[in-house]
Amino acid sequence: MPLQSVVRLCPESPIHVTCMLGMEISLDINGCAPPKCVSFTIRGSARVRMDISGSLVSGREDATVCRALSDPTYVLVRMVSPSPATDEDKVVVSYFCPDDEIPVATAVMYLTCVEVSLEVDIYRDGQLEVPSDREAKKKWVWGPSGWGAILLVNCNRDDISQPSDRATSFAFFCSETKNLSQMTLTTQGPSNILKNYRLILHTSEEEAAKARVYWPRKDSSQALELVLGPGRPSHTLIPLDCQGMETFYVEATEFPSANFSGLISFSVSVVEESEDQAIPELPIYKDTVIFRVAPCIFSPSTQMPLEVYLCRELQLQGFVNTVTELSEKSNSQVASVYEDPNRLGRWLQDETAFCYTQAPQKTVSLVLDTPRAVKLEDFPIKYSLSPGVGYMIRFTEDHRVTSLDSIGNLMVSPPVKAHGKEYPLGRALIGSSFYPSAEGRAMGKALREFLCAQQVQAPVELFSDWLMTGHVDEFMCFVPVHDEREGEKGFRLLMASPSSCYKLFEKKQEEGYGEASLFEEVRTDQLVSNGRQTQTIYELLMNDKLKKENDYVERCIQLNRAILKRELGLSERDIVDLPQLFQLEKLTNVPSDQQTSKLFARPYFPNVLRMIVMDKNLGVPKPFGPQIKGICCLEENIRQLLEPLGLQCTFIDDFDCYLTDVGDFCACANIRRVPFAFKWWKMNP
Amino acid sequence: MPLQSVVRLCPESPIHVTCMLGMEISLDINGCAPPKCVSFTIRGSARVRMDISGSLVSGREDATVCRALSDPTYVLVRMVSPSPATDEDKVVVSYFCPDDEIPVATAVMYLTCVEVSLEVDIYRDGQLEVPSDREAKKKWVWGPSGWGAILLVNCNRDDISQPSDRATSFAFFCSETKNLSQMTLTTQGPSNILKNYRLILHTSEEEAAKARVYWPRKDSSQALELVLGPGRPSHTLIPLDCQGMETFYVEATEFPSANFSGLISFSVSVVEESEDQAIPELPIYKDTVIFRVAPCIFSPSTQMPLEVYLCRELQLQGFVNTVTELSEKSNSQVASVYEDPNRLGRWLQDETAFCYTQAPQKTVSLVLDTPRAVKLEDFPIKYSLSPGVGYMIRFTEDHRVTSLDSIGNLMVSPPVKAHGKEYPLGRALIGSSFYPSAEGRAMGKALREFLCAQQVQAPVELFSDWLMTGHVDEFMCFVPVHDEREGEKGFRLLMASPSSCYKLFEKKQEEGYGEASLFEEVRTDQLVSNGRQTQTIYELLMNDKLKKENDYVERCIQLNRAILKRELGLSERDIVDLPQLFQLEKLTNVPSDQQTSKLFARPYFPNVLRMIVMDKNLGVPKPFGPQIKGICCLEENIRQLLEPLGLQCTFIDDFDCYLTDVGDFCACANIRRVPFAFKWWKMNP
Repeated sequence: MPLQSVVRLCPESPIHVTCMLGMEISLDINGCAPPKCVSFTIRGSARVRMDISGSLVSGREDATVCRALSDPTYVLVRMVSPSPATDEDKVVVSYFCPDDEIPVATAVMYLTCVEVSLEVDIYRDGQLEVPSDREAKKKWVWGPSGWGAILLVNCNRDDISQPSDRATSFAFFCSETKNLSQMTLTTQGPSNILKNYRLILHTSEEEAAKARVYWPRKDSSQALELVLGPGRPSHTLIPLDCQGMETFYVEATEFPSANFSGLISFSVSVVEESEDQAIPELPIYKDTVIFRVAPCIFSPSTQMPLEVYLCRELQLQGFVNTVTELSEKSNSQVASVYEDPNRLGRWLQDETAFCYTQAPQKTVSLVLDTPRAVKLEDFPIKYSLSPGVGYMIRFTEDHRVTSLDSIGNLMVSPPVKAHGKEYPLGRALIGSSFYPSAEGRAMGKALREFLCAQQVQAPVELFSDWLMTGHVDEFMCFVPVHDEREGEKGFRLLMASPSSCYKLFEKKQEEGYGEASLFEEVRTDQLVSNGRQTQTIYELLMNDKLKKENDYVERCIQLNRAILKRELGLSERDIVDLPQLFQLEKLTNVPSDQQTSKLFARPYFPNVLRMIVMDKNLGVPKPFGPQIKGICCLEENIRQLLEPLGLQCTFIDDFDCYLTDVGDFCACANIRRVPFAFKWWKMNP
Repeated sequence: MPLQSVVRLCPESPIHVTCMLGMEISLDINGCAPPKCVSFTIRGSARVRMDISGSLVSGREDATVCRALSDPTYVLVRMVSPSPATDEDKVVVSYFCPDDEIPVATAVMYLTCVEVSLEVDIYRDGQLEVPSDREAKKKWVWGPSGWGAILLVNCNRDDISQPSDRATSFAFFCSETKNLSQMTLTTQGPSNILKNYRLILHTSEEEAAKARVYWPRKDSSQALELVLGPGRPSHTLIPLDCQGMETFYVEATEFPSANFSGLISFSVSVVEESEDQAIPELPIYKDTVIFRVAPCIFSPSTQMPLEVYLCRELQLQGFVNTVTELSEKSNSQVASVYEDPNRLGRWLQDETAFCYTQAPQKTVSLVLDTPRAVKLEDFPIKYSLSPGVGYMIRFTEDHRVTSLDSIGNLMVSPPVKAHGKEYPLGRALIGSSFYPSAEGRAMGKALREFLCAQQVQAPVELFSDWLMTGHVDEFMCFVPVHDEREGEKGFRLLMASPSSCYKLFEKKQEEGYGEASLFEEVRTDQLVSNGRQTQTIYELLMNDKLKKENDYVERCIQLNRAILKRELGLSERDIVDLPQLFQLEKLTNVPSDQQTSKLFARPYFPNVLRMIVMDKNLGVPKPFGPQIKGICCLEENIRQLLEPLGLQCTFIDDFDCYLTDVGDFCACANIRRVPFAFKWWKMNP
């Protein structure tokens, strides 16, 4: 019984055709019409649908359609469900001569319809039902009215063994399949009809390298066995049961990247084995489904905190205590991270970022680690993560100690709208040099392209190469604000402002407090080791060099302010200026051969912008500003700016934490936050 | 004069601001308002536009707007054209107390507007005018209402020297710039205003590797000099003339591919040099334009021929003569290609394909060469091309002699519409195995991804791994048809049909011609060397083995027919079946270690589907079919099928050309055709 796309009827003997559900057969009506016939009737059984020159006829045993025999006539025949038995369905064509009521000839096509189909959760409702549009599952469409199944990347922390090992030893239990997406293979039709066929589940070599497909072992172990994966693009399924449904479990192994769009398709092919050795096997049908690998999404600081990862350095007790207190206030957990004595936990925020990935069935938090120290045997945060939090490593190109090429050089905005385009998951803000040059530092291509390839948080490049760390979090920060007023965005962008600081100091001097001094409470040895000294307001205002350097910094920040306003659709009223001074210094946190004469900005006093945002509770680095009537005038000013917005400022009393050790400032905490309520697949990137 | 995005007015002394055309300034109105003031008036000079809380005010010297001083008020100020002199433009704000007609204070901002902008032909009309939407040039939008500038790939046949050499030695004359896209840099403003600034033209390292930017030498040589290119992502422009326009000429060096979207952007940055050595330079403005590299587009056989490239083999004189005659009929040129005696010119169609690339200013024909013989010092077609025809080489992954991994395994359909989607430039049809397996052959990833990356001819994979050559042109061919009837597509798909051939032979036998024999006119030695022999119709019909093999081939073709109907939106009436028989043989055109037991199909008689289509004139391989009343019944049948469609069949009398040498059939001609009238950028891929 050949499977054909075009069938020529034969009035002498009935034709037997096996067809796959979803396939169309073109029935050639004229080809075999007896001479002189001018019309024909066509009749199909109940499961048959026919398209006769554009008019659709649903098959009822007695529904007969009569037509004139004109130029080449083809009737498109398809079945709506599998046949319960061989030859159970049929199409009957009778040919008539003019003015004759008895047909001259009758041709019969017996049909046996078999269903072989792959189904996935294309509407993301947990259902793997057959969609009405059978072509839909081959496409993946973004947006509110889009569709398409989703795969999660396996971010398990366990070292992933070689695929060849996994095939035999993998003990993945069916109860642990929540991170996996289901794919079912349905075969339905008369029993034994497919005994001459092989079913092959397959994908391409390239896609197989980025995904794994499992199925339950055929023993009682409840374990899953690898079917497709790296180096194994196809798998033959035997024995073939004709009334069966197999469930496969699928996961991705890679997030989308510059070389990987994120789309992975799987097909089942039906291949006919020839009984004659000399005739090669013949593929007769293919059904395909497509998945998109869920992107890696970063949560902005305006999202509620879930968990604070803290490096418990003894020297940083003030910092640790305050952050722990704030966590209690915001009902988030504190987790301790293993101390690497050599690195003092400074990698924690610089080189790692919490993010999440999401499928309809599951949201997985994970930490993205971009280690610069490639020679470290292992990466401490991996072993400190709470259960269920995943881990993914992406090596950066640039292993210099202070670098823009790490995930710490990323900030994410809250949801915004700019130039009429919605960014419901915010935009990724990347620090960079303004133009490429020998001296300029920028995020490496691989990491930049990785962020672009996620598609859902369209990156914006900011100018951060004027900062010693080069990280954008030195001059900006987003805080949540629950405005009742219409048109309010629900957040404020805080920006470092040397001019606001000067204005404040000038005002204080005018009020007669010129002798109040910065750093009065800081120990002398701490100041000396950081190249700082106590300075009165008067002295600070008289320092022309410092003023000139801060004018430069002010303009660098203004440039970014203009970019941010344009790319995030912000207005001045969305921005709050916080007093902060900087000082230009030589790049000292790099090997001597990488040092240049160019100066970079370092905060002059603990950088208030590097606050820890835990909902309404802000843990702000204590600036140790001039005390006026027993109150630090910087703290007072910051409270005046932020408390009317409903924010609570707690100043973190730990000078060492912010200025000790040039270059890497407080990076000893990292916060895992609530994912966005908005589902990424509902947006149009 | 600092360039700022936020300006705070000062009633005591006027503020002087330099602004770039296209930049917005947020003017803080309240910040400096004298106490008790409740309203203000604002007045701008003629080139100033103001946005006061959403209402737009165009600047006329005497247009004064009066507003209440409410919560933080910002006026967005922008200029519509550069200032003719320093401080020539201004905004004046006057503050009023209640019930007082004389202002308490007046603040003035003097503006000097400078234009620094890159312009490209974003509307593809040859004009580099400033578009009304200044953001438009940063985006590239597909479709009939899209926009965006276009770059052509340099397909010059001359070896491209190292970029470092080109910089100094490159003698590209301004008169030869038609393949290059223009980009202009306009600087306008009061003279000497920009003397403290550097202008830097730049792109990213990655983009610089894929494009070259030239400008005219500053001497009288009329030559172009390299400004940006591989390894040179930025260039500082000095000296800076403030009333100038520089024209740059841009070309790409690579077509889009899997790792290259085709988008390349260029920016000009304005960088302020500090007079104080201790203060780093400061970027203050960036203007960006984006180009898309034009894709490589293939013309289907239904396009008019322009030029026929022929390998002048002495043995193939019949072929050469007929093709030359046909060229004359269709007014196309014949070009001879250098003979490589070892390869007998067989690479010509298998490994090369003519295509074109197009920008509004120029359409360039080129040959895409995918050589399998990498060790050949050079590639003969390169030296045979007509003037103006370009050359581009893409090495394939698979260097086996018979392979699906070459551009010969590509066919392009005429424009089609399927599932509601238009393909105005047709679809690329690629031969492949149906599923990956150890034995299966398929087009290599690099070439497949290259075809996908062009975006405009969305590829369809067909099943061709049942053929010895594996090339789709063995079983299908498109011919142009000028139907007057409505809804006709303007072409027919011809498909090889063993069943049509059997039906024809059966009919001839019934008519009493069973003794007529195939290959009667062919010399015995030619038959022997190809494993063929003369056979009567009777013998052919009695040959069960041949019948079984052709049933298999028929079903392979039917499978492709179903895919083609679905993916190209074809109906049966768009398809014509041509009689053709095949025979299964072992793969002999590969090294012995690559041979398997699997059999592949080879045409039994010269493959009529491998016809040369020159508009209405078809050069059809002479099948040497059974002669009936002095006429070959295959030829007669083919004429009956094609001549009513307005096509003229000329049978090419050259058996050697089609069957000699297993595997590589007539590939000794390649045709350059008229590009589509439809412009690729008008489509939505």
